Amino acid sequence: MSFMPSDWKARFITIRSNKMFEMVVISIIILSAMMIGASTYDIAPYWINALRILDIAVTVFFLIEILIRMAAEERLKDFFRSGWNIFDFVIVTVSLIPVDESEMVLLARLLRIFRVLRLISMIPELRILMNALIIAIPRMGYVVLLMFIIFYIYAAVGSFLFESINQVLWGDISIAMLTLFRVATFEDWTDVMYETMTIYRFSWIYYLTFIFLTAFVFLNMMIGIVLDVMQTEHEKYNREHGEGEAGEVHWLKEHAGEMDQRLDRIEGMLQQLTESSKR
Amino acid sequence: MSFMPSDWKARFITIRSNKMFEMVVISIIILSAMMIGASTYDIAPYWINALRILDIAVTVFFLIEILIRMAAEERLKDFFRSGWNIFDFVIVTVSLIPVDESEMVLLARLLRIFRVLRLISMIPELRILMNALIIAIPRMGYVVLLMFIIFYIYAAVGSFLFESINQVLWGDISIAMLTLFRVATFEDWTDVMYETMTIYRFSWIYYLTFIFLTAFVFLNMMIGIVLDVMQTEHEKYNREHGEGEAGEVHWLKEHAGEMDQRLDRIEGMLQQLTESSKR
Amino acid sequence: MSFMPSDWKARFITIRSNKMFEMVVISIIILSAMMIGASTYDIAPYWINALRILDIAVTVFFLIEILIRMAAEERLKDFFRSGWNIFDFVIVTVSLIPVDESEMVLLARLLRIFRVLRLISMIPELRILMNALIIAIPRMGYVVLLMFIIFYIYAAVGSFLFESINQVLWGDISIAMLTLFRVATFEDWTDVMYETMTIYRFSWIYYLTFIFLTAFVFLNMMIGIVLDVMQTEHEKYNREHGEGEAGEVHWLKEHAGEMDQRLDRIEGMLQQLTESSKR
Amino acid sequence: MSFMPSDWKARFITIRSNKMFEMVVISIIILSAMMIGASTYDIAPYWINALRILDIAVTVFFLIEILIRMAAEERLKDFFRSGWNIFDFVIVTVSLIPVDESEMVLLARLLRIFRVLRLISMIPELRILMNALIIAIPRMGYVVLLMFIIFYIYAAVGSFLFESINQVLWGDISIAMLTLFRVATFEDWTDVMYETMTIYRFSWIYYLTFIFLTAFVFLNMMIGIVLDVMQTEHEKYNREHGEGEAGEVHWLKEHAGEMDQRLDRIEGMLQQLTESSKR
Repeated sequence: MSFMPSDWKARFITIRSNKMFEMVVISIIILSAMMIGASTYDIAPYWINALRILDIAVTVFFLIEILIRMAAEERLKDFFRSGWNIFDFVIVTVSLIPVDESEMVLLARLLRIFRVLRLISMIPELRILMNALIIAIPRMGYVVLLMFIIFYIYAAVGSFLFESINQVLWGDISIAMLTLFRVATFEDWTDVMYETMTIYRFSWIYYLTFIFLTAFVFLNMMIGIVLDVMQTEHEKYNREHGEGEAGEVHWLKEHAGEMDQRLDRIEGMLQQLTESSKR
Repeated sequence: MSFMPSDWKARFITIRSNKMFEMVVISIIILSAMMIGASTYDIAPYWINALRILDIAVTVFFLIEILIRMAAEERLKDFFRSGWNIFDFVIVTVSLIPVDESEMVLLARLLRIFRVLRLISMIPELRILMNALIIAIPRMGYVVLLMFIIFYIYAAVGSFLFESINQVLWGDISIAMLTLFRVATFEDWTDVMYETMTIYRFSWIYYLTFIFLTAFVFLNMMIGIVLDVMQTEHEKYNREHGEGEAGEVHWLKEHAGEMDQRLDRIEGMLQQLTESSKR
Repeated sequence: MSFMPSDWKARFITIRSNKMFEMVVISIIILSAMMIGASTYDIAPYWINALRILDIAVTVFFLIEILIRMAAEERLKDFFRSGWNIFDFVIVTVSLIPVDESEMVLLARLLRIFRVLRLISMIPELRILMNALIIAIPRMGYVVLLMFIIFYIYAAVGSFLFESINQVLWGDISIAMLTLFRVATFEDWTDVMYETMTIYRFSWIYYLTFIFLTAFVFLNMMIGIVLDVMQTEHEKYNREHGEGEAGEVHWLKEHAGEMDQRLDRIEGMLQQLTESSKR
Repeated sequence: MSFMPSDWKARFITIRSNKMFEMVVISIIILSAMMIGASTYDIAPYWINALRILDIAVTVFFLIEILIRMAAEERLKDFFRSGWNIFDFVIVTVSLIPVDESEMVLLARLLRIFRVLRLISMIPELRILMNALIIAIPRMGYVVLLMFIIFYIYAAVGSFLFESINQVLWGDISIAMLTLFRVATFEDWTDVMYETMTIYRFSWIYYLTFIFLTAFVFLNMMIGIVLDVMQTEHEKYNREHGEGEAGEVHWLKEHAGEMDQRLDRIEGMLQQLTESSKR
């Protein structure tokens, strides 16, 4: 199902796995990132034009690069099997969409920013870090849900009690949740508290219990989960590579099997000896 | 001791363990939570009426649901053995109490909020998280007590020394404790300190020692306890499920017993052989 | 070397180890703490008098209690072997020193506050917590020293460069260290930074490197040390009590010795057999 | 290749390894640090002169000390093999450069500050701490890079969207990154948010996702890495010193080898016995 002569394909595979080629791609991504940064400064019209031309060049380079990587695959389907490839493909495709410079300029600029994310897919160490983060997400999901329930309940209570005191902070449940997030980050939370304490003298109980529930217990739980993931990874790595304590324990278990066979043989021989001595 | 025909009971048990039924209950809880949220916004009278009717419908649904779950038990006593069931029962019962709409409207609203907590008892993963938190509470208790003693002593000292400087922050011991909690969260603590430093030049020692004692040492200890609980849980799980390093160590210990028996047999046979060779 | 009739001593030992007696002592300490708290409020002269009489009663009770505990010891020297006993003795003795009510009233009050600390020596769980903290202190010592060096260097640099900008924040090295501590707690640190950035445009490098060095790296190291202590304690406990993974590993090691002896016997018997079969 | 009589060298080696000499050097470093601190205060001209003379004395002492340590080496090259020696050499050499008192006084002062860093190279425990930090740096490098990418993307988006709202906070990408660092430390971040929310109602999504990404997930990852390093160090130490659980596991593995040899001998003997009984 190859869609081009095989010597071409071989050439593309060579390019793709070339260390130099990877370096050039990373450099172009960094150049593209620096262009985005430069465009946030007030620059002379001459430079704006230069940036526009450079941008077209970068877009074309990314297009060629992704076509080479697609062509280097055995089948086109294989390319889309990797999540990182789909990620690259979407970023490159989206930046190809022509946007009306006058109106959609802001959107076009925002889309170009996401090119920087391609650095993550290009550098293997960053890819590993991202994978570790993604693994931790489902385990964190329920903690976030529990957190959300606590925020929701406190926001509802706060909105009922304190709405008449300060509309800006406690107007409705969504505003109250934002205010509570502010309290959870300790950002001028005493100003919020002192204001409601003028009407409800004991409203400090509301804030203190909320802070204890969120900032202390839950932050700790999140740290706990992250550490849990890290430790499991670490142990797995050690056991697989036969390094460290976990590696030695694994070796001992494997070794116990060999010892069993040995003892089997010894027992067998003794059985034979006993029988022969009886005869 | 069944209080209804057994075919009815069987039907209730089927309903209770139905995945669809669980989903409906969770949906109704979320609907109820959204109704509470909606009532914090300024809404047209038409919608307020709609919310009131919906609220009655939800209350009736929760009543029916808990009656089904009670009826599905072998004995009524069994239902109240689970803490989560008691929790559900209290929340449902309390919302049945008729409240005078004009006067007690605030209380009635607050009580309805706690229905959201039923999400925790309905979703098993959240129940596990809550149990982990509850396990950690007694171990944290003494850390909190030690923390309280430190707060109390510093609040007494602060109240004696700084009362004349600022009545609002150091008026009496309870106000001083609230001020110290503010210092412990780093919330504009330098404003508090600079004020007292105008009279007592060395009062920064008071604040710095307090911050070191509480924010650093104790927060770390709390993290330590949480991690301790997590690690113990993790290890227990691994050993039970025979996974990871702890599982392998457990396997090795079990295996050592088998090996002993094997060596017993070998020794026994050798004993026999020695005796027979002597004869 | 006993300094009283032995039946009296026996009676004191009985009192000391009585659970009820302990409870009474703890209650009196809590009462004493509440009296200190009460005296920070504006109270009627009648109550001030009542507090003074209660204070004398508490002082006398503490004196009797410590005399009983001293009398219950085999020798008086034994009493002073425990650090907690010395701690109690100092607190009780100091509060016996008569102070001129008119002049030294503040000092007298401050000294009474430390009675609350006796709670720590009375409740075993708090004593364990304190011991764990004290164990961690020497290991933390060098981290604190390293931290101090970083603060000192940054404070010297800050004082040289920024003194002309703001005398209040950067006047001399000790004031600059206090300002840096404020920056380390993220307390309005941007205000400090924006002020110096008006003169030195690149002074954000000073603040960012400082924050990275202190807040991130060192806080993490402290957490690391605390966890290290916790983990060592946890492992030691497990190994000693034969619980958990560490306990099983310890069992395996002990067991390996037994197995060696067994194999010695087997080898010995085989040696004998071989020799006898040769004959 | 020795460049002086060997009895002189021996004398230098004796001095270098003398505990007293080390103490004197540490004292002089602390004196030098205190002199820097003193010079930040407003002091009388008399003292300024005294400090100048003391400074020359300290510089000469450091020069002599480093010459002794260089002379005590077998070859001069050996001295420069240790990173800490190079560190000391640079600090001493730099402070020898004569600076024009009138103009370069600030630079001269700043250079003298780095002498305090010599404390780290003199105290072994601090050297160990620094080494642990340096080991953690490469592992932290990629986390910092990932963090930088996130900051860069958010800063670019923020600069495009919010530049018209507040030039001071969002003027260009570098200013926006500083503003985001402020948000990440929770420093008055709500002021920044409320300002942009007046134009973009949903800009709270921008801040909340940013805070979640940086403050929570990444800080946790950093803690994870630090703990990882600590744990690895701890395990390595235990295994090497045969202490703790890891030490026992290591012993068990070593022991398994001995047991194999023993079982080999037993099997061999049995083989012999079987053969002899057959004959």
